[in-house]
Amino acid sequence: MREQVKGRVYLVGAGPGDPELLTLRAARLLKEADTVVHDRLIHPAVLEHARPHARLIYVGKEGGGESVRQEDIHTVLIAQARLGRRVVRLKGGDPFVFGRGGEEALALEEAGIPYEVVPGLSAGIAVPASAAIPVTHRDVSGEVTFATAHRAGGAPDWAFLARAQTLVLFMAGDRLEEVVSALVSHGRAASTPAAVVEAGTWEHQRVVESTLGNIALEARRDAIGSPALLVVGEVVALRSRLPSLVARG
Amino acid sequence: MREQVKGRVYLVGAGPGDPELLTLRAARLLKEADTVVHDRLIHPAVLEHARPHARLIYVGKEGGGESVRQEDIHTVLIAQARLGRRVVRLKGGDPFVFGRGGEEALALEEAGIPYEVVPGLSAGIAVPASAAIPVTHRDVSGEVTFATAHRAGGAPDWAFLARAQTLVLFMAGDRLEEVVSALVSHGRAASTPAAVVEAGTWEHQRVVESTLGNIALEARRDAIGSPALLVVGEVVALRSRLPSLVARG
Repeated sequence: MREQVKGRVYLVGAGPGDPELLTLRAARLLKEADTVVHDRLIHPAVLEHARPHARLIYVGKEGGGESVRQEDIHTVLIAQARLGRRVVRLKGGDPFVFGRGGEEALALEEAGIPYEVVPGLSAGIAVPASAAIPVTHRDVSGEVTFATAHRAGGAPDWAFLARAQTLVLFMAGDRLEEVVSALVSHGRAASTPAAVVEAGTWEHQRVVESTLGNIALEARRDAIGSPALLVVGEVVALRSRLPSLVARG
Repeated sequence: MREQVKGRVYLVGAGPGDPELLTLRAARLLKEADTVVHDRLIHPAVLEHARPHARLIYVGKEGGGESVRQEDIHTVLIAQARLGRRVVRLKGGDPFVFGRGGEEALALEEAGIPYEVVPGLSAGIAVPASAAIPVTHRDVSGEVTFATAHRAGGAPDWAFLARAQTLVLFMAGDRLEEVVSALVSHGRAASTPAAVVEAGTWEHQRVVESTLGNIALEARRDAIGSPALLVVGEVVALRSRLPSLVARG
């Protein structure tokens, strides 16, 4: 009799971009993987941890086009695991921070596939850091809220988000005007320091720093594209006191 | 003439505990360090990345006693760098998430010492994940707020925190009653799912899951100690649908 081969899926966060911000566990699992199922925003150097003969399956968006449907990703993961393969499902950032990792975990659980979750550096922390913005800072901000501008099932709670000491908004690049207008109409001062970081931690990272009232205009003037993250709060003003970090960003 | 030796400080996040959750960059910088200045909650296996002859300087709390003063840590970092050393300042979690990394960066900036910041996995994401709690989840929570129960300069904005879809409260272990009472009196339903995770991602991790109204009593019954993190929100209820992750936690 053949031994029963048991496949397994690892839902792995790859971090925000910079390949050295991968965790040791993610690097090890990539080396051991038979199949790597990955998104768009994974640095090519991260994929180089995989073995030459590992099967790479791309499930990201084709330049502005449609994503692979979430259900189809579940089907791929389950089918690969049922073939007895060690599958790494590699996601930008952290699987549980706007990464739909919970949905994939539920699908694997329901299909009876063994799986694990390996957290990754979230862009929400690492990207502001690479732009010299500490998301919390003594006497400046004692909390930080992560939210996303793209949201299934209803608008964000703008009244709540307008009140966050530090607000980090994911996927904000293509709807800055709308976001700014919602925050200001819910009471956030237009004079609040704000920054947009495009491609944070990547070689081509760009930062636009301004006030909430002017950030959308200035980001448009600089043709800021996707992926971009918006940071709102007094912590943004710390950048000017950390010129060595700004120079490196 | 002797070449001028230039010291440098790396403010490095070591992640929440589990030594495999270190980043590749943190591991490399530890290998290259002459001096490692570290806190209490660093796993011993993380320090093993340092060279045998690297100088380790401990600046954490002595079991319940006083911490080394923040200003004294700055003095140590600056002095070591001025001796021409490559200094890794190793912090639990991420340097900029309740890690006082911003203060250390400002002190180094003002002293003219070259420095860099290397983000680490924040406990705020990785610890709930290790307890099978996705901090965001489609149709359940579209934002997550990190705050701390210990706060210099005034109380947290409880009215704001009570409204967070997912609230992750750091350093909550020794003041759960106070925190729960503040959240409930500001309108958070006592029936909201809540969990306390002690020593998240460490070998001795423990999780208590309950409702906000009962979590303090149940955590006390289980003698939950420090470090502990409180998670409040409907995402906590996803644990029951992810039994494979719970079993691993």
